[in-house]
Amino acid sequence: MSRIHVPIRLRWNDLDAYGHVNNAAMLTLLEESRISVFWGAGDLRVDGVNDAEAPIADTRDADTITLVARQEVEYLAPIPYLREPLDVQLWIGRLGGASLDVCYEVCSPEGAEPAIVFAKAATTIVLVDAASGRPRRITEREREAWASHIDAPVAFTKRS
Amino acid sequence: MSRIHVPIRLRWNDLDAYGHVNNAAMLTLLEESRISVFWGAGDLRVDGVNDAEAPIADTRDADTITLVARQEVEYLAPIPYLREPLDVQLWIGRLGGASLDVCYEVCSPEGAEPAIVFAKAATTIVLVDAASGRPRRITEREREAWASHIDAPVAFTKRS
Amino acid sequence: MSRIHVPIRLRWNDLDAYGHVNNAAMLTLLEESRISVFWGAGDLRVDGVNDAEAPIADTRDADTITLVARQEVEYLAPIPYLREPLDVQLWIGRLGGASLDVCYEVCSPEGAEPAIVFAKAATTIVLVDAASGRPRRITEREREAWASHIDAPVAFTKRS
Amino acid sequence: MSRIHVPIRLRWNDLDAYGHVNNAAMLTLLEESRISVFWGAGDLRVDGVNDAEAPIADTRDADTITLVARQEVEYLAPIPYLREPLDVQLWIGRLGGASLDVCYEVCSPEGAEPAIVFAKAATTIVLVDAASGRPRRITEREREAWASHIDAPVAFTKRS
Repeated sequence: MSRIHVPIRLRWNDLDAYGHVNNAAMLTLLEESRISVFWGAGDLRVDGVNDAEAPIADTRDADTITLVARQEVEYLAPIPYLREPLDVQLWIGRLGGASLDVCYEVCSPEGAEPAIVFAKAATTIVLVDAASGRPRRITEREREAWASHIDAPVAFTKRS
Repeated sequence: MSRIHVPIRLRWNDLDAYGHVNNAAMLTLLEESRISVFWGAGDLRVDGVNDAEAPIADTRDADTITLVARQEVEYLAPIPYLREPLDVQLWIGRLGGASLDVCYEVCSPEGAEPAIVFAKAATTIVLVDAASGRPRRITEREREAWASHIDAPVAFTKRS
Repeated sequence: MSRIHVPIRLRWNDLDAYGHVNNAAMLTLLEESRISVFWGAGDLRVDGVNDAEAPIADTRDADTITLVARQEVEYLAPIPYLREPLDVQLWIGRLGGASLDVCYEVCSPEGAEPAIVFAKAATTIVLVDAASGRPRRITEREREAWASHIDAPVAFTKRS
Repeated sequence: MSRIHVPIRLRWNDLDAYGHVNNAAMLTLLEESRISVFWGAGDLRVDGVNDAEAPIADTRDADTITLVARQEVEYLAPIPYLREPLDVQLWIGRLGGASLDVCYEVCSPEGAEPAIVFAKAATTIVLVDAASGRPRRITEREREAWASHIDAPVAFTKRS
């Protein structure tokens, strides 16, 4: 039930000539938040947990490649350059056999006023065995590690 | 009914360490195809039309900003480095009051065997008046220019 | 005399298909380290100083644009993906009238063994008044703030 | 003696929030021009030659990796968004044993008035055998192919 908060720092050239984070750069921010969680790189915080560690372990090893099968993003407000890291909130919206849906809300830096949700998004990840190139089952250890971060998927409201 | 074919050349660093076009770079390729069509930069070809010109005129001017409100991508096959330009096929899936849905199939270079559809995608664009920052109506001239490129929206099959 | 240490986190797609940080991405890493120092975004550490703050103040304001006039990079070792931030060491190699040379050594994460210098680089920055678009003098306050970070410029050994 | 002209199309997000091509994106443009020449991807034109082909053959094969050892850029004028491709002019400034210096002038689109040189640059490339990871000699065939494109190296005027 608990979201993982990943602080993601903007880079100056994430912005395009409109002065806002480019729509493609948004996917890079999502990718970086996944990497913090899946590979244990970077910092993160879990609601109600002190000194939380990256909960998602077995995908860190070199035997697994994580392929992106699908992405959906709703851009709710343009993101200007921010000195403080964005608060990317991440959870698991669906846990399948060899794939999972990662859900996100890209929020203003923690503590910033007013709090803004800049984007909602979801990514379908397929776990692939690096040697065979074929999808591999989510392990029991992964299911356990991720269980406490499963929640309802993003409700996209702008689908036509 | 007719799709617009936009040749989009890969850049070497669109690839990430997996040796495939990065998932975020895909959105940049879509953006470039929109720019060819909306701004008249780059080359394009329309099925059954000789010496086709960019059909979409009024968004070229500096008075209009095109904001991305929503994007959805299904990644069907990884894209390796290709010397020949991708054949990004683009059409209008919906024409609203101040917004429209641009649909795409990202295909292997024209003439390549076997022909591959690497991705299907859709982008919701909102036309914004640069001066006021508010959405502006699609003009009659734009409706006429785009009319022959309206077709059924992408049928996404991987939504969970 | 004291170098400023700026921790710069890699992004996954800084790597290209060779599995190393792309040569162009290197300049983005340098840019991010400058921004940490010049704009006070991000963390930094100064040798021998506790709780160091960004020393370089007046360029933070919106009245000044910092233009890059020149860059030189020697790539000494390829940078693989690293979970810990690079230790970008930065100092001032020259303080002119309206321009300055920022020097860098891009090093392995602090504490990593063996310690590696991945690159040496220098950037000539021109301070430009945003309103007039013309170079503006370095202020006395800036000279004072930067004085303790002036050192000999990078000795490039690979110029032909 | 003859320069190779490589048309390089900008992408919208090569621009940063200043509305100009970002300093790091410049290196990507140079990389793309090298790839057109070294790998035979993209179009090019050689002064005084009809239907010129990419002159530089043996580096196209998968057995050779081209590493960037050094780069130097003088940014002479900011590059705005341009619909027409830049005219990147490229020649060989030095041909060593296992390395070479590629020189460039990044110019406004061919035929544009006024003609602008936006940047001058040089890249030192080392040819590396992909299997052994060690530098390999430039072949006689490469020397012949490149001979007619050797000229004086860029004279950098802004070195301090």
